[in-house]
Amino acid sequence: MVQATALPRNDSGIETVIGILKQRFADRLQTGESIRQQHGHTTTWINNQPPDAVVFPRSTEEVSEIVKACAAHKVPVIPFGTGTSLEGHVNAPAGGISVDLSQMNRILAVNAEDLDCVVQPGVTREDLNTHLRDQGLFFPIDPGANASLGGMAATRASGTNAVRYGTMKDNILGLEAVMPDGQIIRTGTRARKSSAGYDLTRLLIGAEGTLGIITEITLRLHGIPEAISSARCSFPSVDAACRAVMMTIQYGVPVARIELLDERSVGAANAYSKLSLPETPLLLLEFHGSEAGVVEQAETFGAIAEEFGGTDFAATTSTEERSKLWQARHDMYWASLQLRPGAQGISTDVCVPISRLAECVTSAQAKTAELGLLAPIVGHVGDGNFHTLLLIDTENADEVSKAEEFVGWLNDLAISMEGTCTGEHGIGQGKKPYLERELGPAVRYMRAIKAALDPDDIMNPGKIV
Amino acid sequence: MVQATALPRNDSGIETVIGILKQRFADRLQTGESIRQQHGHTTTWINNQPPDAVVFPRSTEEVSEIVKACAAHKVPVIPFGTGTSLEGHVNAPAGGISVDLSQMNRILAVNAEDLDCVVQPGVTREDLNTHLRDQGLFFPIDPGANASLGGMAATRASGTNAVRYGTMKDNILGLEAVMPDGQIIRTGTRARKSSAGYDLTRLLIGAEGTLGIITEITLRLHGIPEAISSARCSFPSVDAACRAVMMTIQYGVPVARIELLDERSVGAANAYSKLSLPETPLLLLEFHGSEAGVVEQAETFGAIAEEFGGTDFAATTSTEERSKLWQARHDMYWASLQLRPGAQGISTDVCVPISRLAECVTSAQAKTAELGLLAPIVGHVGDGNFHTLLLIDTENADEVSKAEEFVGWLNDLAISMEGTCTGEHGIGQGKKPYLERELGPAVRYMRAIKAALDPDDIMNPGKIV
Repeated sequence: MVQATALPRNDSGIETVIGILKQRFADRLQTGESIRQQHGHTTTWINNQPPDAVVFPRSTEEVSEIVKACAAHKVPVIPFGTGTSLEGHVNAPAGGISVDLSQMNRILAVNAEDLDCVVQPGVTREDLNTHLRDQGLFFPIDPGANASLGGMAATRASGTNAVRYGTMKDNILGLEAVMPDGQIIRTGTRARKSSAGYDLTRLLIGAEGTLGIITEITLRLHGIPEAISSARCSFPSVDAACRAVMMTIQYGVPVARIELLDERSVGAANAYSKLSLPETPLLLLEFHGSEAGVVEQAETFGAIAEEFGGTDFAATTSTEERSKLWQARHDMYWASLQLRPGAQGISTDVCVPISRLAECVTSAQAKTAELGLLAPIVGHVGDGNFHTLLLIDTENADEVSKAEEFVGWLNDLAISMEGTCTGEHGIGQGKKPYLERELGPAVRYMRAIKAALDPDDIMNPGKIV
Repeated sequence: MVQATALPRNDSGIETVIGILKQRFADRLQTGESIRQQHGHTTTWINNQPPDAVVFPRSTEEVSEIVKACAAHKVPVIPFGTGTSLEGHVNAPAGGISVDLSQMNRILAVNAEDLDCVVQPGVTREDLNTHLRDQGLFFPIDPGANASLGGMAATRASGTNAVRYGTMKDNILGLEAVMPDGQIIRTGTRARKSSAGYDLTRLLIGAEGTLGIITEITLRLHGIPEAISSARCSFPSVDAACRAVMMTIQYGVPVARIELLDERSVGAANAYSKLSLPETPLLLLEFHGSEAGVVEQAETFGAIAEEFGGTDFAATTSTEERSKLWQARHDMYWASLQLRPGAQGISTDVCVPISRLAECVTSAQAKTAELGLLAPIVGHVGDGNFHTLLLIDTENADEVSKAEEFVGWLNDLAISMEGTCTGEHGIGQGKKPYLERELGPAVRYMRAIKAALDPDDIMNPGKIV
C-alpha cells in the first residue's frame, strides 16, 4: 500500500458535530466501522482513511445544515458519490463527516426542447440515460464506471466519448452548490453560454469537493443519433495506430469514440470476452450521425487505416455486434485483472498532445518491460489520454516501489511532452506532487483561492492543494 | 451618455509609476491626450474614462515588469486589446496604466498534427486565420469584430460559430498570464483535456482582466471542412423561425451557424448590402462537413423549415454567394446604423434557453415599439443569444432613459426565463447591477476570489465585481 499522510484531527469538534447530526438525522447518520471503511477509499492502492461518520442528506437544505454544523466546529466534510474515484478522493485524512449523496438521486427536470436537464448529484449516468432514452436523448460522458454525476463533475471526468462530446466541463451549464460556509449558490443559468462574471461553474468542476459540495447539476443533453455504427481495425504497431488516429482527427472525421488497446490488452479481451482478435494493437471506433453519414465516416476511416497498415478492418451497424465490442472494452479492467489473478490494478492517467502519443505509449511499454511489471494499456487516443493498468501485488514492497517509480516516471514524461499527469481521474491524494511539477507557480493561486473560500480547510482536506 | 462611476485615484502612485515606466519603456509609454482617450472606452454609451498613460509591452517579461511596478505602488492596470468591447471594459475609472498588447502579436507555434497553436494576446482572429489557411486549419470563434484573441479570451467571446464550435472557453487549452503580483503562470498544458487541479484557465477566461493579464494563449484549431455550404430561409414570424431552429438542433443537424435577422434587420441588410430578401424574419445558415454531408444537412434543414412555414429556401455551395450572404450578416451593425444616420447603436446581449427564445425576441420587439425605439434584432439563435441594437441619440436624455429602461427590462426578462444578461459581451461596467440579480449570492464568492488574488484591486478595477 501507499501511505497517505494523516492530518491533525479536531476530535472534540468531530464529537460535537456527530452529536448534533445524530439528533437531526437519526438513522441517516451512521458511525459503524464497516460503513466508515466503505466510505474511505477502496479502489486504489492508497490506504483507507475512514471518516468518523457518514450522513445521508436528501436535500440541498440538509447539505447546507450539515456544512454549517461542520463549519461552526471546524470539522472536515468529505462529499461521497459512488466511491469509484481512483486517487483517494474520498479518504478522510483528518477524519470528519462523509456526506453520502446517494439519496439525492432525483432527476428534477428534463427540458427536451432545450436539450438540457437538471439532476441531483447522486443520479448515476446509467440511471440518467435509462430515464432519457424514451425521449430520444442521451448524456454522452461515459467514464466506464457507473459513477454519480456529482462525482463526475467533481473530478472533471470524461471517458470514451470525449473526443466528440467533450468532458464534464463542456457538458454542464450550471451548478447549485453548498459553499464551505453553508451558503447555497447557483453558478449559472440554463442559457447555453454566458459571459456573466467569473466562471464558478468551471471552478467547481474538477475541484474534487474542496471548494464546496455540488447539490444540483444542469447538464447539456444530446439527441440520440439517427444512426450509430462501430468499427475495429488491427495495426502492426502502436505507432501506426496512433498515426491513423491523428490523421482521422485532422481530417475532421467526427468520430464519437476512438479507443486503443495495446497487444496485451487485446490478449486479455480475447480471453475474457471470448473474442478472437489478432493480438496486435487495435483501434475500436464508434460513429454517430445520419445513416449515410456513419457509412461515410467508416469508409473514410477505413481508407486512412489502410494507409497506415491497418488490417482486419470491420465496420458494422449491427447493434448486437457493436454492443459486444464495446462491452469488451468496458470490461477491460476485469479482463486485465485476469491476466494475474489476485493482483490489484493501478491505473495511470497521463494525457499528451496527440503527436507525442505513440512515443509516450511505446516508452511506457518499454519501461514496464524493463521494470518487469505486467501492464496492459488502453487509451482514449482521440484525446491523447491513455491508462497503463499496473497489475501488482500491493503487499509486495518491491513491486509497489517499482510501480511507484513507473508512475512517477510516466507522469514526468507526460509533463515533459507538454501533457498532463491526469486526463480525467483527478489529483486527489495520489497525484499531489505532480500537480506542482506540472503547473508550478499556478498552484500558489489555487491555494489562495482555496484559502479565500474555505479559510478553515474543512472541505475535503488533504486533496489537490 | 451613461455615467460610469469614477473611483478614488492614487495620484502620487500613478505619477511615480509613470516615471518608472517612462525610464524603462521610453517612447513605448505614451501620455498624450488623444491616445489616452482612444484607450478609454469608445464603442459604447458609457462615458470615456481615459487611463493616465498607455504602455506597449513586447513580451511577457515586460508585462510582468509593468504589473510589478503598478503593484508596488497600488496603481491600476487596464489590459487593452483592440478596444472593441462593448461594456466599458477598458475604461479607467480610477486612472492608471493601460497595457496595450497590440505589439505582442506573434503566432508562436502552430502544431498542425495536434490541431493547436500558441499565440500572443495581440494576434487578431483574422490575422490568425490568414496565417493558418495554407495549412488547412482555422480557428472558429468569430465575434464579428476583428478582435484580439486576448480580448476574446478575457470576455469569453463567441459569435456566429458557437452553436457548433463552442465559445472561447471551449477552444482554449491553456493560458500564460501575469498575475496581480507580477508572477508569470501557466494554467494548462497542450493536452486536450486535464483534471489537474482548479481550472484557472476557465477562471481567467471571462475575468475581463480583473484577475491577471493573459500573455499567451494555447488555442484548439479545426481542420477547414472539406465542404461548406450556406442556406437562407424566410419565415412568417420570429416564432416560426425559432421553432425551426429548435427542431434543427434537436434533430442533431450539426449546423455551423444559424442566425436570425428580424424583419427590420432584413430591411436594413437589403438597403445596405443591395439584397432583395423578403422583409420577414430570416434564418441564415452555414453547414460544414463532407460534400455529401453538407448536402444532407441542407436538405434536412429545408424539410424542417417547410414544416414551420419557411419560404424562399435557398442553399448554395458557391463560395461567392455564401460570402455575399455572410458579409451582409457581418455588416449588420453598419447596415442598422443607416436606418438612423447619426444615431449610436447600443447592443443588448441576453441569452435564454432556446424554448424561450421566440417569446423573448417577440417581447423585445413589442417593448421597443411601445417605447418608440428603433431597434433591429439579430441573433445567434442556435444558442438562444440575440442582440437588440438600439439606435439612439445618446445626447437626448429622454431617449437614453428609455433605452436604459429597455435594457434593464430585457435583462430582467432573460433572467426570469432562466437565461443570462450577457451571452458573450461580458459584464464590464455596464452590466454590473445585473450580475447580482442573475447569480445572487454567488457574486460574493467571486468577490472573495478577486480579493484573494488581487488584494489591492489593481487589476482592471471597477469591472465585474
